[in-house]
Amino acid sequence: MQPCGRLYVDHAATTPVRSEVLAAMLPHLGEHGFNASSLHAEGRAARAAIDAARTTIARLLGAKSREIVFTSGGSESDTLAIVGGACAARRARGGAHVVTAATEHVAVLAAMDVLRERGFTITVLGVDSEGRIAAEDFDRALRQDTVFASLMLANNELGTIHPIADFARLARAQGVVFHTDAVQAVGRIPLDVDTLGVDLMTLSAHKCYGPKGVGLLYVRDGAALVPLVVGGPQEAGRRAGTENVAGVAGFARALDLAFAERPLEAARLALLRDRLETGLCAAIEDVRINASGALRLPNITSVAFAGIDSTELAIALDLAGVAVSAGSAC
Amino acid sequence: MQPCGRLYVDHAATTPVRSEVLAAMLPHLGEHGFNASSLHAEGRAARAAIDAARTTIARLLGAKSREIVFTSGGSESDTLAIVGGACAARRARGGAHVVTAATEHVAVLAAMDVLRERGFTITVLGVDSEGRIAAEDFDRALRQDTVFASLMLANNELGTIHPIADFARLARAQGVVFHTDAVQAVGRIPLDVDTLGVDLMTLSAHKCYGPKGVGLLYVRDGAALVPLVVGGPQEAGRRAGTENVAGVAGFARALDLAFAERPLEAARLALLRDRLETGLCAAIEDVRINASGALRLPNITSVAFAGIDSTELAIALDLAGVAVSAGSAC
Repeated sequence: MQPCGRLYVDHAATTPVRSEVLAAMLPHLGEHGFNASSLHAEGRAARAAIDAARTTIARLLGAKSREIVFTSGGSESDTLAIVGGACAARRARGGAHVVTAATEHVAVLAAMDVLRERGFTITVLGVDSEGRIAAEDFDRALRQDTVFASLMLANNELGTIHPIADFARLARAQGVVFHTDAVQAVGRIPLDVDTLGVDLMTLSAHKCYGPKGVGLLYVRDGAALVPLVVGGPQEAGRRAGTENVAGVAGFARALDLAFAERPLEAARLALLRDRLETGLCAAIEDVRINASGALRLPNITSVAFAGIDSTELAIALDLAGVAVSAGSAC
Repeated sequence: MQPCGRLYVDHAATTPVRSEVLAAMLPHLGEHGFNASSLHAEGRAARAAIDAARTTIARLLGAKSREIVFTSGGSESDTLAIVGGACAARRARGGAHVVTAATEHVAVLAAMDVLRERGFTITVLGVDSEGRIAAEDFDRALRQDTVFASLMLANNELGTIHPIADFARLARAQGVVFHTDAVQAVGRIPLDVDTLGVDLMTLSAHKCYGPKGVGLLYVRDGAALVPLVVGGPQEAGRRAGTENVAGVAGFARALDLAFAERPLEAARLALLRDRLETGLCAAIEDVRINASGALRLPNITSVAFAGIDSTELAIALDLAGVAVSAGSAC
C-alpha cells in the first residue's frame, strides 16, 4: 500500500493501472473468462476480444493486425525480437554480425549475450555525454555480414530520444533487420511503425497505465522470427500459450488512451519536468541535469548531485516520502 | 458473453476466474500497482506480495520458496524446462539424448522439436490403448547419454494419470533430469514435489480458476536451467521481466483454494463424470469411453461415438448449447 502523503515519481519504472483499463479487463476476469483457442461460442467470444484488441492496437501503430504478436511483456518481446530475429536473419542471409548500443535496456543487452553464445559478433555503439548515438557511428558499424540491429527509441534512464527513423533507413538500405525497444516512448512521443521504418518494435503495457505481464512485438510483414515460447498455434505460430484475454484487452484500452492523450499529456509532463529541474538547479549547487542538451522524453529527468551517491539519495528520498529510482548510467 | 442457458463443460481447456481469486488480484490492478523491482516503499510492497504468493505456493507443493519460478503460463514453463533444462544438462553431462511420450502436450512436443534442431536425439514413447506409458518402456529408453526426460502427470485429453513417481525414480537413479507437465492435475490429485520426486514441474493458473497469463516452473535445488526470457534479475536470474504482481497473487489464491477443496471436489467431479458416462453408454450404441481402464483424473472424460467425427460433433453440441472440445488423440 502507498503510505499516505507519499509522492510517487517513478512512472518510468511502472505506472498504476487506470480505472478505464481495469474496466476493460474485468469482463474477462470473472465467470466469462474463456479460452480464445476453443471453437465453441464461449471460446469465440474470447477470440473476438483478442481480435478487437489487436485491431485497435494495429490501428494506433499504423500496422496491420497480423503484424502484432502479443507477449508477456517487454523482456519477452526483446528476447523474441533479438534472439528470434537475428537467428532467423542468419538463416536467411548467412551473416552473424549484430549492432546495438551500450545504453540499451538490460533485456536487449542480455539477449545480445545469448547471441554471442550462439556465435554472433556484436558491435556495441557508445554514446556521447548526452546519451546520443551518432548516425555516422551506426553507419560505420554496418558490415557486409551484419544481419540485425537493435537500438531503443528512447532511453529509460536519461530519456534521450534516438533518431530511429534515420537508423532504420540506414539498416534497411543494407538489408539489415531493425528492431527498436519503444517501451519508454508510449504516450510520450508519436509511434508509427511506417514513420519509424522499423521491422520489429517492442511495447509493454505497464509503462502506459496498463497491466503488468502483457506486451507485444510488432513484426513487419516479411520479417522472420524463430519463436521463443513454443507449443500451440497462437499468435500465428510466433508465440504459443493460452491468450491472456484480460491483459490484452487492458493493454488495448491503455494504448488507446495513451495515444489520444499524448499531445496534452506530453506538454503537461514537460512543464512539470522543467519546473522541477529549474527548481533543483536554483536551490542546490553542483546539480547536473543529464542529457539536458539532447532531444528528451518529457517525463524523464536524470539528475546528478556532485558527491552524492545516487542509491543513497534514492533511499533518503524514500524515507522522506518520495519514490524515485537511482540511475545506473550516471 | 456466455449465452443464457448454455452448458460449459470444457474446464480442461480453461476455467473462469473465481471471485476469491479476483479479490486477491484487485489490490494490484489499481493505483497501487507498483514495480516489485523498485527499491522504494511502493516497490517493496509489491515485492512483499510476490514473496507471500511464492511462500504460499511453495508450502502447497512441499517445495522451497526459491524453487518456484513464476512464468507467463504453461507453454513458457514447458519451453523453459525442456529447452533450458536439457541444454543445461547437456553442458553439465555431455549427453544429448532426451525421452518423452507421444501424448504429451503440444508445448512439450514443440520444445522437443527445438531440442532436435539443437542436435539432441529424442526417444518418443508410445502409449497403450488406455493412454498409458509402460515403466519398462521408459526404463529401456534410458541410455548412457540420456540427460533429460519429460512425461506429463496427467493427460489433457484422456485424463490418464501416469506413475510419475516411478518414472522419476528410474530417471534420477541414472542422473537424468526429470520434468513433468502437471498443468491438468492441479486440484484433482495430490501434488507434492518430493512424493513425485521430480526435478522440474510445470503448473498454470488458468486451469484451476486462476488468471490466464501466469504459470510457474518448480525447479528443484541444484537443477540447472538456461534462461528463456532474459534481461533483469527477476526470479533469481531464471526468468526476466517486471513481475505480474496481480497475476501471481491470484495464482497463489487459486492454488490455495484448489488444494484445500481437492478431496471433496475430486469426488464430486468423479461422480458427475461417472453419471455422464453411464448415461451416454445406456442411451447410445457404439459409445467408447477412452482410457476408462486407466487411472484417470476425475474431471476429464473422452468419449468416441462410432462413425461420428469429433469436430463435427463438437460443433453440433455447441449449436445445441453445450461447450466441449474435440480430442485430437482419438
